[in-house]
Amino acid sequence: MQAAVLVAPGRYEIEEFSRPALPDGALLMQIELSGICGTDKHTYQGETKQYAGTPAETDTPFPIIQGHENVGIVSEITPTAASSLEFYGRPLKVGDRIAMCPDIVCGRCYECTHVMGYVWCEHSDCYGNSYSSADWPHLMGGWSQQMYIRPDTFVYKVPSGLSPKAAVLVELMACAASLDKLKEFSSMSHEGFNSGDTVVVIGSGPLGLLHVAKADMMGAGQVIATDLSETRLAFAKRMGADVTMNVAQTSAEERIALVRELTSGRGADVVLHMANTPASFVEGIEMLKRGGMMLEMGNFADTGEVSINVHRHVCSKNIRLIGITNHPSTGYGPALSLMERHADRYPFEEMVSHQFALADVDLAMRTSMDPTSLKVAMAPNGFI
Amino acid sequence: MQAAVLVAPGRYEIEEFSRPALPDGALLMQIELSGICGTDKHTYQGETKQYAGTPAETDTPFPIIQGHENVGIVSEITPTAASSLEFYGRPLKVGDRIAMCPDIVCGRCYECTHVMGYVWCEHSDCYGNSYSSADWPHLMGGWSQQMYIRPDTFVYKVPSGLSPKAAVLVELMACAASLDKLKEFSSMSHEGFNSGDTVVVIGSGPLGLLHVAKADMMGAGQVIATDLSETRLAFAKRMGADVTMNVAQTSAEERIALVRELTSGRGADVVLHMANTPASFVEGIEMLKRGGMMLEMGNFADTGEVSINVHRHVCSKNIRLIGITNHPSTGYGPALSLMERHADRYPFEEMVSHQFALADVDLAMRTSMDPTSLKVAMAPNGFI
Amino acid sequence: MQAAVLVAPGRYEIEEFSRPALPDGALLMQIELSGICGTDKHTYQGETKQYAGTPAETDTPFPIIQGHENVGIVSEITPTAASSLEFYGRPLKVGDRIAMCPDIVCGRCYECTHVMGYVWCEHSDCYGNSYSSADWPHLMGGWSQQMYIRPDTFVYKVPSGLSPKAAVLVELMACAASLDKLKEFSSMSHEGFNSGDTVVVIGSGPLGLLHVAKADMMGAGQVIATDLSETRLAFAKRMGADVTMNVAQTSAEERIALVRELTSGRGADVVLHMANTPASFVEGIEMLKRGGMMLEMGNFADTGEVSINVHRHVCSKNIRLIGITNHPSTGYGPALSLMERHADRYPFEEMVSHQFALADVDLAMRTSMDPTSLKVAMAPNGFI
Amino acid sequence: MQAAVLVAPGRYEIEEFSRPALPDGALLMQIELSGICGTDKHTYQGETKQYAGTPAETDTPFPIIQGHENVGIVSEITPTAASSLEFYGRPLKVGDRIAMCPDIVCGRCYECTHVMGYVWCEHSDCYGNSYSSADWPHLMGGWSQQMYIRPDTFVYKVPSGLSPKAAVLVELMACAASLDKLKEFSSMSHEGFNSGDTVVVIGSGPLGLLHVAKADMMGAGQVIATDLSETRLAFAKRMGADVTMNVAQTSAEERIALVRELTSGRGADVVLHMANTPASFVEGIEMLKRGGMMLEMGNFADTGEVSINVHRHVCSKNIRLIGITNHPSTGYGPALSLMERHADRYPFEEMVSHQFALADVDLAMRTSMDPTSLKVAMAPNGFI
Repeated sequence: MQAAVLVAPGRYEIEEFSRPALPDGALLMQIELSGICGTDKHTYQGETKQYAGTPAETDTPFPIIQGHENVGIVSEITPTAASSLEFYGRPLKVGDRIAMCPDIVCGRCYECTHVMGYVWCEHSDCYGNSYSSADWPHLMGGWSQQMYIRPDTFVYKVPSGLSPKAAVLVELMACAASLDKLKEFSSMSHEGFNSGDTVVVIGSGPLGLLHVAKADMMGAGQVIATDLSETRLAFAKRMGADVTMNVAQTSAEERIALVRELTSGRGADVVLHMANTPASFVEGIEMLKRGGMMLEMGNFADTGEVSINVHRHVCSKNIRLIGITNHPSTGYGPALSLMERHADRYPFEEMVSHQFALADVDLAMRTSMDPTSLKVAMAPNGFI
Repeated sequence: MQAAVLVAPGRYEIEEFSRPALPDGALLMQIELSGICGTDKHTYQGETKQYAGTPAETDTPFPIIQGHENVGIVSEITPTAASSLEFYGRPLKVGDRIAMCPDIVCGRCYECTHVMGYVWCEHSDCYGNSYSSADWPHLMGGWSQQMYIRPDTFVYKVPSGLSPKAAVLVELMACAASLDKLKEFSSMSHEGFNSGDTVVVIGSGPLGLLHVAKADMMGAGQVIATDLSETRLAFAKRMGADVTMNVAQTSAEERIALVRELTSGRGADVVLHMANTPASFVEGIEMLKRGGMMLEMGNFADTGEVSINVHRHVCSKNIRLIGITNHPSTGYGPALSLMERHADRYPFEEMVSHQFALADVDLAMRTSMDPTSLKVAMAPNGFI
Repeated sequence: MQAAVLVAPGRYEIEEFSRPALPDGALLMQIELSGICGTDKHTYQGETKQYAGTPAETDTPFPIIQGHENVGIVSEITPTAASSLEFYGRPLKVGDRIAMCPDIVCGRCYECTHVMGYVWCEHSDCYGNSYSSADWPHLMGGWSQQMYIRPDTFVYKVPSGLSPKAAVLVELMACAASLDKLKEFSSMSHEGFNSGDTVVVIGSGPLGLLHVAKADMMGAGQVIATDLSETRLAFAKRMGADVTMNVAQTSAEERIALVRELTSGRGADVVLHMANTPASFVEGIEMLKRGGMMLEMGNFADTGEVSINVHRHVCSKNIRLIGITNHPSTGYGPALSLMERHADRYPFEEMVSHQFALADVDLAMRTSMDPTSLKVAMAPNGFI
Repeated sequence: MQAAVLVAPGRYEIEEFSRPALPDGALLMQIELSGICGTDKHTYQGETKQYAGTPAETDTPFPIIQGHENVGIVSEITPTAASSLEFYGRPLKVGDRIAMCPDIVCGRCYECTHVMGYVWCEHSDCYGNSYSSADWPHLMGGWSQQMYIRPDTFVYKVPSGLSPKAAVLVELMACAASLDKLKEFSSMSHEGFNSGDTVVVIGSGPLGLLHVAKADMMGAGQVIATDLSETRLAFAKRMGADVTMNVAQTSAEERIALVRELTSGRGADVVLHMANTPASFVEGIEMLKRGGMMLEMGNFADTGEVSINVHRHVCSKNIRLIGITNHPSTGYGPALSLMERHADRYPFEEMVSHQFALADVDLAMRTSMDPTSLKVAMAPNGFI
């Protein structure tokens, strides 16, 4: 079986691997689709130090098989995996479609015992990032025809009503569990995210687009999206945005003014900052109403500094600012359930704008960097 | 101008009133539709002591003009009302469509200063309930051609995209702000109401039906509705219910078993008890998962006692039980906004199943008690 | 080494056991004190079905060594236990004082992955309850000179400032993490537990007494305690209660009236129901203010039914009722820290009112049932 | 009666006023103590534009009588004030000791109807700041022998157990309602402020000192305080701080390292930033654990910009940052209640380090700027 191996930043090779023998508890998954994520682009470009300031920061152990947004079919399974690997306790068998959380967590550290969903494990490893393909069992990423699933992986059965093209988005959709977090931090004093609220999504890449849909699903009264790509903004409207603003054609002042105009002069209740740049961070704060809440998920890698006025942007603005990295293991079930429920309401499948064979992995990577693309996915066993 | 006056329990008379002179701050509203609510039925049947155990408990001051779910058109307005009566600060003028909160609150008592939305004012009065039509300004209920709006009323401009048949539901829809309350009480430890959750609505009368839609709007993963009327259950499906159970054709054990079957054996995350009977209260608790949350809004009037096992139903069940009466003044804006946004997704207008002229108020009242009706409304100036 | 073995309900025998060989990860603990808990009394009296309606319900596997509230000294330790068994990652060595959570959890079930602190594990076992002393490693309860600690136990180092007499209370004190739960469910709309609130504790047994102290520690404005024992009520005052009411000398009506008098007529913000009877359940609700919150922890075993009025006690009362069983593994660290911090402020050590040798286990059990006792503890290696 | 009038920045004059006639609802208060607050210093120094970016921003209407932290005795009262002015509905009479909230709010704007405690009223005015002493009723600040209390003022009866020296701190203590806010935003996922948490208070001026005490009162496990004054740090210890760090004698790196050392390497759960400088803002973030919560109350006036790294300080830090201005009207009752309850535990009275007669107002102002002072108060009718 073949896999695309990143032997060093910028250099892929297609390699042949043999089928690994499975210890009890493990399974083998035939990949249908494996998405390209922003993290993959950083690794490809040699920005291999990620998650700054956290214990998970490590260098990438080249060679690696990338791919952590995976959906596929169980192709071989061991008895214990069949009976108890699935996250919600459902039995698994060969032929079942599954998705997975790429994080392998320790379950014993302070973060694992104190934070729901194991999101901040101090010893977390990640499929598609942390494992060298030189080491057994080799097939630890999704840009491969078959992938090895360890007994300590979080695995989720895909509902029958959900196609692989929609299911490949589940890891990103699980990130939108962050909106439940905002609800958790809400109060009747109209902080957080309440029904009917105005939500601004800054940055309409794949993560932003799914947050547009999730905000719409969760009872937003008005959704406003920004991006520099008209393609993405057009797609944002199909995902539930009422108003879009092209940052290439408007000034920050104009965008802030429009948000105020659309909110009786008050500003947005919630801003979801999904852009990978500090440039729009202050703009996001200025779009908020007094006491509004901003979620920062965009600056997932180090993008430099920005200057803020503590008095004006924080204290007297009464801001509620929430930084979020990663997604909880508990977010996959709700994400799959909601994507199935609303499969006709949002064009999830069309978000997979491009599929590529393993041999075209370089082109796939370059396509994913083109702002007119949405989610680019590898299809190692043929297009779906 | 005419009004239907309830001179004593069970006895209506159509009376003629003269147009009241308006003090500055007040306005006159030409009623388009005024809904019949459960409270109105209690009053009609002589159950005139309501809100047991709370300071608001009073006898009804017959004669009264009922009707507190009102939508209509501004027919006369004073300068201060034009500039500052609307809840969100928007200007008003003759011809504007408005809705209103029927509660008149003191704004100074412990409850007013400590609870958002003035829901539990210790001195609350209510249009359609607390004011005798014998006293000036007489026209203090919606079953009248014109209605007097005091300067201390919460008034809401109806969005242009919303018809009066949908807007007459806004007071009930504002009650569904209770679901935001459940979100407020939620945590990542999967209590409260999270995305993808299974929600059971017990009792699919008008209040239950709007909660079905609101749960669907707010990201429920699965909505299950019960009622004894097939008409209402069919409507529940159109409002977003996935599964319905007819309580006339199934046993409590069967219903509880089905909820467990639909939730991998765990039980529902959230139960919304909207039935006006204690009989299904314990059933609701037994439908919950451990740590599940039940909202009690159905037993709005005294319906007697029920026996519970404190150990089994409360302590070891780890129940989170929330009683809710009334709705916040802050709930109208979001309700109107969401009803307009989702006007094509839910058949709000069809929920107004019957309209009646003032002369037919008795028939209207009887129709509202028929479980095949949904929302019955008075249309004092002609059908809409 | 010796242990008190409950060979059947009501019948103890002192048995001799040999020291078990320790697999890596385990340790041996020399018991200093092991408390007698309500659960132990139920088991002694043959009420061996507990946790009604939950998957953990099982019969007691006699013979057993009871004792799950344990503090002691590490007497033998294996390398992995030394480096990584402690919950917060601190190293352990022979001679260290430790406490422990008695629950052994699976860490993989729905409840373990969705609820903080593993409180509701579907496959939970419990030291002192679930393990037969006939099976290796035999010493699975604290009424023994030495106790075996499995590699999957939650173990906590006791701070140097805390004596064993105070530390033996830590499991009960960890139960008071429930008050943080009430804070979590609080809002600025004055629900839940806010600073300055009036808190009523119904039932001043050991659990109630520690909740009196915890409420005081967490910023209660006024604490009111009830019990039928003057000894306990006197102790409640030393733990922070401002007012006490003896239920043997007052009627429910008098107690409710006094709570209202002490709260400007409104009722308590929070009621903590810690009494093992349904009789005071409705009294607790009637002590609440509108929108008040009651915590039910007292009816830990099945005590029968009680009749409530759904309208008056739930809906129109706008009650927030929270059932709580068990305590989170994350509650021990804060409990130890707070008990050390406030060691001079509350008479924790004096709460251990009686100590008994293993040979006197019958007397110990009977003493624990006497309402003039507070916490009765076994001291298998001599009094402290 | 005399008052100290600030006729222009930096220039006080003692003026004589005549007793105003009271309209029904008003009362006259003989000032015992009136604190000097940071806001007063800004005004004195001509920094008269405050609350940047909010609608309340206005120029100071010189001449004014300053003083908004007031405690005194009812010296004249009208019938309506006697029966219904007190916030909790208690009757008032001549001779009663009262405190007051200096904010006069509209009660009708979006902020008043949507945020508990009227903290962000769009049309707020403030005793001691917004009213010219040239206009009737002239005596609208506390640096006066008598002060006029309008019928729309929030007035609070001081409990009998509380001296005026303690009660003059109530407005500041009411600001510490912000800690309840942090609890409201907490979850069992150990965000927000939980029992046993480590709390760092940056800046131990009067506001910081009261937050040290409040954190201690609310169940902090460990409190760490910083300041540049040894006097204040010594006082912080008496208010409940376990560890203090002098910022004049340590580097930011040393302080961050010490916080990590005191928290098993993780960082603080909560940082309360009470220093009026952006310099320590980033330091505060770096003291936090991952997912920790910081409250920004210090930069109440514009102090310039600071540079942050959005990735490192917000996103990957998973920060929860809450800006807070002002305090709720609902915070006074709990503040008075807690100060009375814990009057023996904390040296509240000694926090009033200096008292001055009206004639010495210049010296009072300069003393308040000396970091060795704590709360400096005017005593217009003689020292207490």
